Amino acid sequence: MVSQKMYALGANRSMIRELFEYGLQQAAIVGPENVFDYSIGNPSIASPVEVEQAIVSVLQEMDSVKVHGYTTAKGDVETRQAIADDLNGRYDAGLRADNFFLTCGAAPALNAVFRALTLSEESEFIVIAPYFPEYKPFVESAGGKLVVVEADTEEFQIRFDALEAAIGPHTQAVIINSPNNPSGTVYTAETIGKLGELLRRKGEELGHTIYIISDEPYRELVYDDVVVPYIPAIYENTIICYSYSKSLSLPGERIGYVCVPDCVEDSGAVYAAVAGASRSFGHVCTPALWQKALARCTHLRPNIEAYRFNRDLLQKGLHDIGYRTANADGAFYLFVQVPNGEKEEDFWRRAKEKNILFVPGSGFGCYGWFRLCYCVSADTIRGSLPVFAELFANQ
Amino acid sequence: MVSQKMYALGANRSMIRELFEYGLQQAAIVGPENVFDYSIGNPSIASPVEVEQAIVSVLQEMDSVKVHGYTTAKGDVETRQAIADDLNGRYDAGLRADNFFLTCGAAPALNAVFRALTLSEESEFIVIAPYFPEYKPFVESAGGKLVVVEADTEEFQIRFDALEAAIGPHTQAVIINSPNNPSGTVYTAETIGKLGELLRRKGEELGHTIYIISDEPYRELVYDDVVVPYIPAIYENTIICYSYSKSLSLPGERIGYVCVPDCVEDSGAVYAAVAGASRSFGHVCTPALWQKALARCTHLRPNIEAYRFNRDLLQKGLHDIGYRTANADGAFYLFVQVPNGEKEEDFWRRAKEKNILFVPGSGFGCYGWFRLCYCVSADTIRGSLPVFAELFANQ
Repeated sequence: MVSQKMYALGANRSMIRELFEYGLQQAAIVGPENVFDYSIGNPSIASPVEVEQAIVSVLQEMDSVKVHGYTTAKGDVETRQAIADDLNGRYDAGLRADNFFLTCGAAPALNAVFRALTLSEESEFIVIAPYFPEYKPFVESAGGKLVVVEADTEEFQIRFDALEAAIGPHTQAVIINSPNNPSGTVYTAETIGKLGELLRRKGEELGHTIYIISDEPYRELVYDDVVVPYIPAIYENTIICYSYSKSLSLPGERIGYVCVPDCVEDSGAVYAAVAGASRSFGHVCTPALWQKALARCTHLRPNIEAYRFNRDLLQKGLHDIGYRTANADGAFYLFVQVPNGEKEEDFWRRAKEKNILFVPGSGFGCYGWFRLCYCVSADTIRGSLPVFAELFANQ
Repeated sequence: MVSQKMYALGANRSMIRELFEYGLQQAAIVGPENVFDYSIGNPSIASPVEVEQAIVSVLQEMDSVKVHGYTTAKGDVETRQAIADDLNGRYDAGLRADNFFLTCGAAPALNAVFRALTLSEESEFIVIAPYFPEYKPFVESAGGKLVVVEADTEEFQIRFDALEAAIGPHTQAVIINSPNNPSGTVYTAETIGKLGELLRRKGEELGHTIYIISDEPYRELVYDDVVVPYIPAIYENTIICYSYSKSLSLPGERIGYVCVPDCVEDSGAVYAAVAGASRSFGHVCTPALWQKALARCTHLRPNIEAYRFNRDLLQKGLHDIGYRTANADGAFYLFVQVPNGEKEEDFWRRAKEKNILFVPGSGFGCYGWFRLCYCVSADTIRGSLPVFAELFANQ
């Protein structure tokens, strides 16, 4: 007497969760120093100290009933204005508080946008592999279809021939995620420019707007001199989904937003549909105390030196052994090719037997690769490199 | 190019919100002391001081990365165990941590249950008027149908003849909400007993379980010696949806749960479907800091003396004038009959002209009544009574 579809979604445990629990079991047997768990993307760096200071200040300074009361569904205007101010300062974006709808993180933000843009069960959302696997249940539960464009495994940019072939009369949007989970790569301004040109041309041909849904929780996690372009400045019909999970190391606190800039066609209608979709699945408001704290914290940036250190250590170590990796420009993921033409599942099994745990590329629509989350201790990386060398040498 | 259904949900502003803003405008013109806004059920009593102390203690005592990290989707086991312990102590309920799935308040809890129990577009959920109007978009967005049973305007219990007539082969559940929004009444143990008998009998006739979905955010807000029964002890197939919004005055913080007791048929499958449904609309976890704080606060009870004072003041004042009200046993709502056979909309308009603002009963499926939220200042009540007297006298 329950929905079989919902049952399956709840009962089929994610591989990440299974690996995580397997890792804990193994740690109890062989010792935690001999288990190298690269499976989970849980930020390992503390929030800036100002974040917790802001929480305490809000509690000290403000009336309790006001702090914890309902806010409007879209969120406190002070918080939305602070977010707009921060982005305007960095990108000259011309955003207003009313372009933002606060959500309980990026996942419900994406869900709201998918549902807002789903016109019928034929509506299609295109994603470019490798991609975050939850897009599929999200799009399907919104009533639409996910269409996957195969990966560019040379540069991890976009195979425009394949993308163009995937666009059809029911295409509502292209989902992009840059810096990317799982590849760690960042789309260049050139890539976004070509994408914008293609979507404009196809939109004119088809007689309707094709949106970009830019899922960008890793926007501030980039290394060296890599620049993440502000997408709406390149392609006007861009809707942004964001979360403070990674940039302020607050993954469990669930605060993020949908941004519908004024340059989006029918931006008012898109915004209203996002609000309606949020309402339809029980969004009331984003945690109120966090809204108040965030209003004081939008200028803070993550301390990514530890991630950069890890990335360099892991990437150089693997390159020295002979592994090939995607450009690790951002986020905290290193995407690695399974070496020596071995089958992905064989390599994954051999690694697991040696207590190196990770999610294989087929979980992201990109067979033959694997994802390492390097938000781990440097000792985990140091300890794992000889094991990676062994795996490489002894197929 | 957006979903018209979602657009309508987002663009049609709620009457409550409109009244609230109208009240602010009027306050600027005639002075706040002359506006009597009974429209919004935002708790007016502060959280117990221990709640904010718990937040600060968690920040002081625990590692920041642990505090703010992802929890499992169902929530920290310590928090779920603390909830189970509290309920077991009060009801001898035999609940375990694994009976609970933490949600961002009661609204997503209800949505998850509706979606978990929707088998097809024919699936029906019965609600008894007067009822919380958001049930309708929630059930419809889950893909099911809401069936409304008309109100018992004598006692505001259940008209069992009408309920029985509404039950059919596609009935999946009956939603109950006691203490009730908007009537403020509590279903007696006798009412729940008769409901359980009916659902058992009809379930056998139809060959499938009919669940009770007990939406009970006002469970701890009851006055005098009124007792809110623990529903699963009376009818085994009961799924509870709860929020700490009212009991701990944390409406903006979004922390609540679905409870699927072991006595529910196929409880494991129901729980898994609730988890899957939550996943399908982007639930990741409940705000992590609040989970940690709640683990220390489940024993706290609301200070409802101020609400009781307001209720007595308002109820006695209206009775003295000649108004008829429902039994105001719980929550912070007084449900009042439109006097002298006047049309609801006429009375509402006349009240609004005198700056008494409230939601009319037809908003809750119960024409000819109106809801007063008495989580206001006592001065608001005192100031409004002469105006209510005037409205009563001069139709």
